[in-house]
Amino acid sequence: MPGTSMQEPPIEALLFDVFGTVVDWRSSLVAWFEQFGRNRGCTADWPELVDHWRAAYQPALEPIRLGKRPFVTLDVLHRESLDALLPNFGLADASNADRQEMVRAWHALEAWPDSVAGLARLNRRYVVASLSNGGVRLQINLSKHADLPWDAIFSADHFRQYKPDPSTYLGAVELLGCPPAAVVMVAAHPSDLTAARTLGLRTALVARPLEYGPRKMPLADPPAAWDFSATSILDLAEQLGA
Amino acid sequence: MPGTSMQEPPIEALLFDVFGTVVDWRSSLVAWFEQFGRNRGCTADWPELVDHWRAAYQPALEPIRLGKRPFVTLDVLHRESLDALLPNFGLADASNADRQEMVRAWHALEAWPDSVAGLARLNRRYVVASLSNGGVRLQINLSKHADLPWDAIFSADHFRQYKPDPSTYLGAVELLGCPPAAVVMVAAHPSDLTAARTLGLRTALVARPLEYGPRKMPLADPPAAWDFSATSILDLAEQLGA
Repeated sequence: MPGTSMQEPPIEALLFDVFGTVVDWRSSLVAWFEQFGRNRGCTADWPELVDHWRAAYQPALEPIRLGKRPFVTLDVLHRESLDALLPNFGLADASNADRQEMVRAWHALEAWPDSVAGLARLNRRYVVASLSNGGVRLQINLSKHADLPWDAIFSADHFRQYKPDPSTYLGAVELLGCPPAAVVMVAAHPSDLTAARTLGLRTALVARPLEYGPRKMPLADPPAAWDFSATSILDLAEQLGA
Repeated sequence: MPGTSMQEPPIEALLFDVFGTVVDWRSSLVAWFEQFGRNRGCTADWPELVDHWRAAYQPALEPIRLGKRPFVTLDVLHRESLDALLPNFGLADASNADRQEMVRAWHALEAWPDSVAGLARLNRRYVVASLSNGGVRLQINLSKHADLPWDAIFSADHFRQYKPDPSTYLGAVELLGCPPAAVVMVAAHPSDLTAARTLGLRTALVARPLEYGPRKMPLADPPAAWDFSATSILDLAEQLGA
């Protein structure tokens, strides 16, 4: 089996990061705000708004990861950072209902073109699950919208802690009931993979050079750093013999 | 919408009990042991063994529900009750590997004939999830085996407590992010539904008169006790307009 050496157990399961790795949050949200602008007859620099919203994400998780704030689901954090942001884009008057719709836009993102076919192939041979900071309901809605064929959803909600806290990776592995080395963490982000590798999981990078838009240069990534390095989820399925 | 009165929120999600309600554990396990007997050239009263094994289930959960024993996943309890049972059926010499296979037989049960089609119909209109005492990995394997189209799996493993403890129903409702009355608990067992109803969930009985085999009389059930009463999951889908 690919990626298996004598001392390693066979791969049983893959855990996928979702935002950026499986779904294209940036294009999806920009398109959502463009439609919102047309409906409301208003305009703003939507890509800039979306980029700022996403930039607020990691700082918003930090107090929870540090134990300085009790766990709240990602929708709550998205709403707080949105509320802080809207005045800067001329949207201080947006209604509560509009703000709720904006937060719900994260529940209806589009998959990258290879994601559904790639997950479906992997799913025939392995357990294929998410491991995302998105809430359980967010992920349910997202998976229905984008037709993601998960065997199971794992969420920060389950562990009441956010990635890259070790409790999230180890919690998912425990629920899968197999050794960490039988599980592959799949992500477009080295930080996610580094955390998983430290805990004994195997790792697969899926390159998503357009995640942050066409103008952002992707980070250089040492090709030998991960157990697998793929250009798409279909490519990963090919490498894993699925 | 069916089952909605003015003071009740619309139904968003259905939570399904699994053993007995969605899958036919008894016939599946009897068939598994018959095959085991043929492979090993041994014989025993397999239906009796299966019935005794299932009868040990509720008593095994009790110390955990009472807080007298730390949570362990259902596979562990199944193995303990199996070990206690095998000597009575002339199988005291069964190997560890055979016992592991027996416990794993619970991961590969067959669905009732209406289950997959009924869940798939409900799934187009509602969030459709399990809420089972089966472990996460058990349910993943079972859902792959029987093609159950869940949007999400909820397990005793997530809440580290077994149904009918309130923390399981309330935990699932919280993860769904909607009011209890927007969630329907679906089960073949009045005890499961009674517990859910006490907590404000809506309830649907799916009659499974053959769950305990052809010789067992099903319990009489007052027809007006539940919000919905169905003869199959397809019938429930019909009643819910899905």
